[in-house]
Amino acid sequence: TAHPVLDHGFVRVIDYMGDDSAICQAARVSYGRGTKSVSNDEGLIRYLMRHWHSTPFEMCEIKLHVKLPIFVARQWIRHRTANVNEYSARYSILDREFYIPAPEHLAAQSDINRQGRGTTLEGETAARVLEILKADSARAYDNYLTMISDEGQQGLARELARMNLPANIYTQWYWKTDLHNLFHFLRLRADAHAQYEIRAYADVIGQIVAQWVPIAWRAFSDYRLGGAQLSAPEL
Amino acid sequence: TAHPVLDHGFVRVIDYMGDDSAICQAARVSYGRGTKSVSNDEGLIRYLMRHWHSTPFEMCEIKLHVKLPIFVARQWIRHRTANVNEYSARYSILDREFYIPAPEHLAAQSDINRQGRGTTLEGETAARVLEILKADSARAYDNYLTMISDEGQQGLARELARMNLPANIYTQWYWKTDLHNLFHFLRLRADAHAQYEIRAYADVIGQIVAQWVPIAWRAFSDYRLGGAQLSAPEL
Amino acid sequence: TAHPVLDHGFVRVIDYMGDDSAICQAARVSYGRGTKSVSNDEGLIRYLMRHWHSTPFEMCEIKLHVKLPIFVARQWIRHRTANVNEYSARYSILDREFYIPAPEHLAAQSDINRQGRGTTLEGETAARVLEILKADSARAYDNYLTMISDEGQQGLARELARMNLPANIYTQWYWKTDLHNLFHFLRLRADAHAQYEIRAYADVIGQIVAQWVPIAWRAFSDYRLGGAQLSAPEL
Amino acid sequence: TAHPVLDHGFVRVIDYMGDDSAICQAARVSYGRGTKSVSNDEGLIRYLMRHWHSTPFEMCEIKLHVKLPIFVARQWIRHRTANVNEYSARYSILDREFYIPAPEHLAAQSDINRQGRGTTLEGETAARVLEILKADSARAYDNYLTMISDEGQQGLARELARMNLPANIYTQWYWKTDLHNLFHFLRLRADAHAQYEIRAYADVIGQIVAQWVPIAWRAFSDYRLGGAQLSAPEL
Ligand SMILES: Cc1cc2nc3c(=O)[nH]c(=O)nc-3n(C[C@H](O)[C@H](O)[C@H](O)COP(=O)(O)OP(=O)(O)OC[C@H]3O[C@@H](n4cnc5c(N)ncnc54)[C@H](O)[C@@H]3O)c2cc1C
Ligand SMILES: Cc1cc2nc3c(=O)[nH]c(=O)nc-3n(C[C@H](O)[C@H](O)[C@H](O)COP(=O)(O)OP(=O)(O)OC[C@H]3O[C@@H](n4cnc5c(N)ncnc54)[C@H](O)[C@@H]3O)c2cc1C
Ligand SMILES: Cc1cc2nc3c(=O)[nH]c(=O)nc-3n(C[C@H](O)[C@H](O)[C@H](O)COP(=O)(O)OP(=O)(O)OC[C@H]3O[C@@H](n4cnc5c(N)ncnc54)[C@H](O)[C@@H]3O)c2cc1C
Ligand SMILES: Cc1cc2nc3c(=O)[nH]c(=O)nc-3n(C[C@H](O)[C@H](O)[C@H](O)COP(=O)(O)OP(=O)(O)OC[C@H]3O[C@@H](n4cnc5c(N)ncnc54)[C@H](O)[C@@H]3O)c2cc1C
Repeated sequence: TAHPVLDHGFVRVIDYMGDDSAICQAARVSYGRGTKSVSNDEGLIRYLMRHWHSTPFEMCEIKLHVKLPIFVARQWIRHRTANVNEYSARYSILDREFYIPAPEHLAAQSDINRQGRGTTLEGETAARVLEILKADSARAYDNYLTMISDEGQQGLARELARMNLPANIYTQWYWKTDLHNLFHFLRLRADAHAQYEIRAYADVIGQIVAQWVPIAWRAFSDYRLGGAQLSAPEL
Repeated sequence: TAHPVLDHGFVRVIDYMGDDSAICQAARVSYGRGTKSVSNDEGLIRYLMRHWHSTPFEMCEIKLHVKLPIFVARQWIRHRTANVNEYSARYSILDREFYIPAPEHLAAQSDINRQGRGTTLEGETAARVLEILKADSARAYDNYLTMISDEGQQGLARELARMNLPANIYTQWYWKTDLHNLFHFLRLRADAHAQYEIRAYADVIGQIVAQWVPIAWRAFSDYRLGGAQLSAPEL
Repeated sequence: TAHPVLDHGFVRVIDYMGDDSAICQAARVSYGRGTKSVSNDEGLIRYLMRHWHSTPFEMCEIKLHVKLPIFVARQWIRHRTANVNEYSARYSILDREFYIPAPEHLAAQSDINRQGRGTTLEGETAARVLEILKADSARAYDNYLTMISDEGQQGLARELARMNLPANIYTQWYWKTDLHNLFHFLRLRADAHAQYEIRAYADVIGQIVAQWVPIAWRAFSDYRLGGAQLSAPEL
Repeated sequence: TAHPVLDHGFVRVIDYMGDDSAICQAARVSYGRGTKSVSNDEGLIRYLMRHWHSTPFEMCEIKLHVKLPIFVARQWIRHRTANVNEYSARYSILDREFYIPAPEHLAAQSDINRQGRGTTLEGETAARVLEILKADSARAYDNYLTMISDEGQQGLARELARMNLPANIYTQWYWKTDLHNLFHFLRLRADAHAQYEIRAYADVIGQIVAQWVPIAWRAFSDYRLGGAQLSAPEL
């Protein structure tokens, strides 16, 4: 089942490997006969999370099929500890699908957070922005098709024609990573500093992870997502 | 000095570490007292290249400042063994600079190579394509400015407005990698299968590398770029 | 089932993810509607292997439990694109198990390959070597136990006592990697230049892979293991 | 100049690339014209550290020559985000140099920390332990030489003979990494949970880093080394 995200996107689990008990199984290889004191799985997993013993979490792996706007993909791909196969716009023709924000997500540049958004745009302003985004997407796509079409001419190579398409067009990929690096991704991308649109994906993946490895998820929520860091001077 | 690439792009060396002799120095740590037989640097470097002893090449590092169209950046960033800091379109406003191909690079979809381009477009067809690319870029940028401007209204957040911009707009980044992974990048991106536009960057970087580490470059050219692979059945 | 390797070692598959068809499934995301020409899986996989399209092979993952001498582990761990949890000699006491080579593997330093071994040692010389290895292993282990034992004294910390143990003692770990990097490992470690003892593990893993992903294995055998590289001057 | 560590080890800086201002230079590419508010370097670097903006720290690189006991090397090599060339005991003969702890570092297994050491051993017990370590090292090395010597016989291959040597023998390598991953290494290995012997190296490297990039080092000390993490329930 595909979990819908934004207006045309989705996240779909293709496969996974390991679960909470696989984390413990790997940790117990390390600790050999010496883990009687943390005998139950939940205790062990919370201990590992608290002490940044991250390698046992690398023993779980998940593969997702994701459909996402290109500007989100550009942020996402920066996470290098993953395996990716993306739809090729050199081989294939992209679909006519563009991300158009819902009105409640159309916001002005923030005054306090230099990289984020602030108050929601008002009715008329919002309407004008939506008009522009829709019209420009439509025109860009029409012209894309025109350029690659070969009626009465030779069509422009796809790898060239796609450069006319804006960053809100959708692409898709298979994306596979291990649980430690997925947690790292979620810590950065489910965070308030991340752009709303990638956060929407992170939130859906968070729910998937909570079902897949509930104990590890709780430990992550308590120690990473919900936790706080104090500096030496603050202590 | 910035080496120009395409119509508005460039590659500029910011810094580097190591050279041909640093490769040998590291290799000789491995081989300890045992490298008398390959006593000269050129012989040793060619030996390392021929036998896929890649770790001594990782001992050289280079940092580049690159300006490049987004559709090229999307291919480039797939090389995960590098360090990157890209211009943020969440913080800052992108410049009005778009890649518009020179007429001789406007080509039709290839008949034989499913992902590449074939014969160059003819005059009138080419003219029409250029017209579209220029007009759509200009309009998208005008509307980008309109959306973020705040005359008599609150401007749309930059992180949202930029989604209207097509993939031929220029971005820039600092990109740092080691020589082994740079060779890997060049093997894939200076290759005939790579899209012309990224190849243009790979070719310029190749010239930079040839000046920086001339012996390693020659070994790479002979054994990787110019070499051939035969399969067992072919042997 | 554990596949035995050397005198006390083994390789045991704990889990895997994906198979030949998962490679194709990921590749077809990239190529979208455009892969009709390589419609069958074997053709597609051989095409990917031949053209160094390595990312679809990263979509398969395998997790092994391995028992191996420390000097083999030291070579193995150099492959950084893997996830590892090793038995901790800080927490736990190592078992009294040492690799003692079979007589046919006791060989002299090679005259032609500066890093390898040459002709097999003769009976008496071999016997003397075996005697030394066995006696030193036994004494080192006895003294290890003496040092950590706490009869009438406080035992030395395990993390210190273990430094008395020679490199032929066995350790164990969970080791997880993707198929592309596993092939890379096998190309380097099933090769004639690799030390016999790690090659023994690579060979066993090769058989496991041949069963797991038979089509990918054949492509790898033909294009990487059995293939040859010609340099530009040789062509 | 080589900074001495333990009884025969050292850390020597071979080369480095970048400094505090290189971190800022890279960060300012990201933030474009938008970094007026954090105009001074120290403020910017502390901001990056506090918010886990780690990629600008990857823009600095350092290459060290390190001599270290094998049991320390085995812990160190687990840090995969580095480039390494190690002395080869297949090619070359190892030197007769073994780590023998100073009496004040000979300690018993800890009662409270299952992986660490506790109270220092007393005079006689300590003396006995030192006696064992010295005698076993000496005998192992003598037998190593005997096995590889070829007087009146063919010497055993070096790759085999070295398996007789204990984990306190010294090896050496070139080790290169970027500043972000070096900080990660230091956080884990300068920590009280790390074994004293690797901590000794981490402490020396910490001093080197403090001289190399003093502002980044202070930020790291305040926010990572000296800081504390609170979980959600603790808040
Ligand atoms: C002509 C051409 C066509 C292409 N077409 C497509 C396409 O249609 N769709 C598509 O998605 N991509 C496509 N690519 C991109 C390609 O799949 C690679 O992503 C890209 O070439 C980078 O190669 P790399 O992974 O070897 O490089 P790097 O990412 O620099 O990796 C180098 C090596 O490091 C190791 N490594 C690094 N990071 C990891 C990690 N996280 N996990 C495991 N190992 C790692 C691997 O051994 C890897 O081989 C194409 C590339 C070319 C050259
Ligand atoms: C709110 C926010 C704002 C951002 N703004 C910008 C911006 O303006 N400009 C910009 O360029 N980026 C920006 N980023 C992206 C950011 O710089 C990282 O690229 C991204 O978050 C991925 O993080 P990572 O490198 O830790 O993850 P991964 O790439 O998954 O790496 C995880 C860890 O693995 C190691 N690692 C993996 N690959 C390598 C390698 N090749 N070399 C060395 N170590 C490696 C490192 O220890 C790294 O921390 C932003 C991110 C966020 C969340
Ligand atoms: C006190 C202490 C006790 C320890 N005890 C044990 C033990 O008993 N057993 C044991 O096995 N180990 C043990 N370790 C080692 C530990 O598990 C790590 O291997 C080691 O600390 C390196 O950390 P790292 O993986 O974060 O570093 P790096 O390997 O440098 O990685 C940094 C980051 O890069 C990314 N990364 C790099 N390579 C990969 C990859 N191939 N795949 C995915 N992500 C990658 C990850 O995000 C990672 O967090 C111990 C370490 C410490 C400090
Ligand atoms: C016969 C033989 C003899 C050898 N002799 C020696 C010796 O004398 N001394 C010695 O030190 N080693 C020696 N080695 C080890 C060798 O140098 C490599 O460390 C080992 O083979 C692992 O190869 P790799 O780096 O390609 O694999 P991986 O570490 O798995 O890396 C695969 C690819 O991923 C990328 N990658 C992964 N991690 C990083 C990273 N942190 N930074 C940049 N790129 C990364 C690179 O593209 C790399 O090629 C020997 C190996 C063999 C097979």
